[in-house]
Amino acid sequence: MKKMKTFAKIGEIKTEIKRQRAEGKSIGFVPTMGFLHEGHLSLVRESLRKTDCTVVSLFVNPTQFGPQEDFEDYPRDLERDADILEKEGVDVVFVPDQNEMYPQGYKTYVEVQDLQDKLCGSSRPGHFKGVCTVVLKLFQIVDPDTAFFGQKDAQQALILKRMIRDLNLSVDIDVLPIVREVDGLALSSRNVYLNAEERKAALCLIKGLKQAEQMIKKGERKSSQIIQTIQQIINSEPMARMDYVEVVDLDNLDPLDKIEREALIALAVYVGKIRLIDNMIVILEE
Amino acid sequence: MKKMKTFAKIGEIKTEIKRQRAEGKSIGFVPTMGFLHEGHLSLVRESLRKTDCTVVSLFVNPTQFGPQEDFEDYPRDLERDADILEKEGVDVVFVPDQNEMYPQGYKTYVEVQDLQDKLCGSSRPGHFKGVCTVVLKLFQIVDPDTAFFGQKDAQQALILKRMIRDLNLSVDIDVLPIVREVDGLALSSRNVYLNAEERKAALCLIKGLKQAEQMIKKGERKSSQIIQTIQQIINSEPMARMDYVEVVDLDNLDPLDKIEREALIALAVYVGKIRLIDNMIVILEE
Repeated sequence: MKKMKTFAKIGEIKTEIKRQRAEGKSIGFVPTMGFLHEGHLSLVRESLRKTDCTVVSLFVNPTQFGPQEDFEDYPRDLERDADILEKEGVDVVFVPDQNEMYPQGYKTYVEVQDLQDKLCGSSRPGHFKGVCTVVLKLFQIVDPDTAFFGQKDAQQALILKRMIRDLNLSVDIDVLPIVREVDGLALSSRNVYLNAEERKAALCLIKGLKQAEQMIKKGERKSSQIIQTIQQIINSEPMARMDYVEVVDLDNLDPLDKIEREALIALAVYVGKIRLIDNMIVILEE
Repeated sequence: MKKMKTFAKIGEIKTEIKRQRAEGKSIGFVPTMGFLHEGHLSLVRESLRKTDCTVVSLFVNPTQFGPQEDFEDYPRDLERDADILEKEGVDVVFVPDQNEMYPQGYKTYVEVQDLQDKLCGSSRPGHFKGVCTVVLKLFQIVDPDTAFFGQKDAQQALILKRMIRDLNLSVDIDVLPIVREVDGLALSSRNVYLNAEERKAALCLIKGLKQAEQMIKKGERKSSQIIQTIQQIINSEPMARMDYVEVVDLDNLDPLDKIEREALIALAVYVGKIRLIDNMIVILEE
């Protein structure tokens, strides 16, 4: 097994990356908040397959959590994560602490206007500003050729693509499919906080999406009908509380009245205290 | 005379820079809004002296002008600028148009909170957000080892340094002294718009700073006294209208009650319709 290198300091990992680049190696990057699951690992494996040197960051980013959100309670297990990554064959792990990423007097933020206010943005104000800021920082530190993100955070992937285009960053983004449990629940580090009952109730998200898929296959095109059906499924689950369900344009996240060629169906649902998200891309064949 | 290369497209200049880097050359960068004067040229010459490949951008950046400001009227003469730069021996010139830098659907902005609201920021809301955004973009495009800025825009230099530190950018900043006319007027592209009378009146800025320097030499330490003296000099010039004069901390731009070790004395004055700025760094010897 090759030796994985771990860095906590920005200066040190920058030096390592420069060394790898000088050897002509391409850099793949998987930014994570740790507590890794198979969703993360699908990104890691794709990076290992596609690039010469795979860097994974483990950092629970405080700036993307609102004051009422679960920053303190977000699950963490750095040792377990490092073990997993070493077994996968990852080359470099970056585990900065908060003070390394946001030192005293930190003042700089990046935002993608409009897109950041839609879907999850409206119930999590400031969330995407925090995401853009930390990802831009990590991109400057790791200098990757390709960065890997999951389709589960559909809005995040879209916003980061826009940030990269707008700021002329020299990095490509690969967005990989949602990884699910056998019963369909989308993997999330937060799933660990669901108790047995909530775990069952959490299936209402995928049930809603599956039902929508069926309706569309049978010819339904009106967003209001699709949304209503998903809402009914969520509402019939006593432990679930709807945050939003929307049918939106894949590029600008604007609501669509009806699906013409393609659409993103996205939803967020509280199950107990845990907020879960899921989504489905619909592409109609001519 | 070596042949200067000119690019208007981001993709093309990125390829050129990559080629230069592959040859092991260091990249120096001087971002400008064009209509070059000796102030700009002092930056260009320092870059030529210190780095292997000097890149100069000429771009009047719309996002750093307020709606009531002089974006349309800002002086431009690309042909003259290119001539000057070629004679200096510059390697690469970048002259993008607005649509290249801010294409349809552009949404991403960078800001350095707090610092952007002080001094010039309070009379030019949004100005430094525009500056940070365009400079970050240019840094991603040009990928310089060192970028050169003038001390005349003291707040800009400070904010950009903070942005670079906060976002972990791999670029050094060199800030070079203010270049002045023989009578002391700080060089500015906007000086061209001063008529003969205004040109004379514009000397009140340097007169104020010189007077402050004398007072401090004689032992004055109280900011209120220094500010009052400068204000009197500005106010005694009928064509001049004070925007601000402040004595501030060199790091965070907070107002100082008195000068203990070092300070920035900064002022902005309207002469006719033209807004001029000037400043002086004070460092007390023990």
